Amino acid sequence: MTDGSTSPATAGLRDRKKRQTRAALATAALRLVAERGLEHVTVEEISEAADVSSRTFFNYFPSKDDALIGDHAVDTARFVARVAEVPPEVSALAAIRTALAEVIDEMQADRELWLLRMEVVTRNPALLPRLAALGVEAERTMTETLAARVGVPPDHGFPALLTAVTGAAFRTAMLRWAAAGGTRSLAELADEAFDALAAGLPDPRCTR
Amino acid sequence: MTDGSTSPATAGLRDRKKRQTRAALATAALRLVAERGLEHVTVEEISEAADVSSRTFFNYFPSKDDALIGDHAVDTARFVARVAEVPPEVSALAAIRTALAEVIDEMQADRELWLLRMEVVTRNPALLPRLAALGVEAERTMTETLAARVGVPPDHGFPALLTAVTGAAFRTAMLRWAAAGGTRSLAELADEAFDALAAGLPDPRCTR
Repeated sequence: MTDGSTSPATAGLRDRKKRQTRAALATAALRLVAERGLEHVTVEEISEAADVSSRTFFNYFPSKDDALIGDHAVDTARFVARVAEVPPEVSALAAIRTALAEVIDEMQADRELWLLRMEVVTRNPALLPRLAALGVEAERTMTETLAARVGVPPDHGFPALLTAVTGAAFRTAMLRWAAAGGTRSLAELADEAFDALAAGLPDPRCTR
Repeated sequence: MTDGSTSPATAGLRDRKKRQTRAALATAALRLVAERGLEHVTVEEISEAADVSSRTFFNYFPSKDDALIGDHAVDTARFVARVAEVPPEVSALAAIRTALAEVIDEMQADRELWLLRMEVVTRNPALLPRLAALGVEAERTMTETLAARVGVPPDHGFPALLTAVTGAAFRTAMLRWAAAGGTRSLAELADEAFDALAAGLPDPRCTR
């Protein structure tokens, strides 16, 4: 059977199965690393905990670190598409916050997994550069989308600035969410950060 | 001779000599990597080009990558001290821009070396995570300083947000400076970025 002759239902089922296996591997990797520490967990152990072979593991992730933090790559393309969908009369900054709503909903639905991921990254600073590195790739795509949206050339300063700054703001909200153990909603923390950006980052004493 | 009996003049001379050796190693590392690529340069070759032994190299940098990008660590402590010196009536955002003036002057004085460094990092994306990782350490120190400055607890959202966002904005200015081959001044590009932050990141079309 070629790809062309696969029915949409079959393709949908296959995609769902793939997403489940991917999530199971990420969860197993995070649980084991949270329990034992980054250096004391192997790909074999992660695969066994997720009930697949090591060969299957490598169909999903190139390395152990990718299983721990590599889920972002999937979200980026969809996130950029969401930004492009926000009506053009909305400012680019507000469009990014709007597009984040879906990402935030998914993260809150997967709350346990995300808090575990943030905990693992916080406890294993060796992983932080990897998290930032994923950001670099994503930033390039976002910059091009924003340049088209506001009608400036891609080498204009604004799109790169807005991409870098909103990325930094959202990472800050994620870290606060994790530090608070999820007791405040990620949506609320993201709103606080984006409101401060829109207001021009005044000192807190000015707004009291 | 103990440290206590060293005259200030001798200590000053020794510090200057150390800084020169450090700069010579960083320059040699960057030149060789720009010429041959990251994978084709060894610590031995860098040391030889800077006229020191490999053993001396490791007194200054733990690895080849650190010689390429590790100079930031020195600047961070001084930068944070400069922020603390800006009068308290100045907003924290403006204080960071003011403190950056000195860093920017030094970078522009060392223009060739910095443009080479940015070129090497841009061409060798494997180094980008390292650059971001240094940022993580520096961000922690800055957050504490800013919290004290604006009079909020360190777990308040504002200091971490401002640190992450201004760091991202300055990195954007640095990348634009490098992309333009230094034809626009870094001070001007940093001003553009910080002005946009203070204005609340409006779309460029709104300000035309």
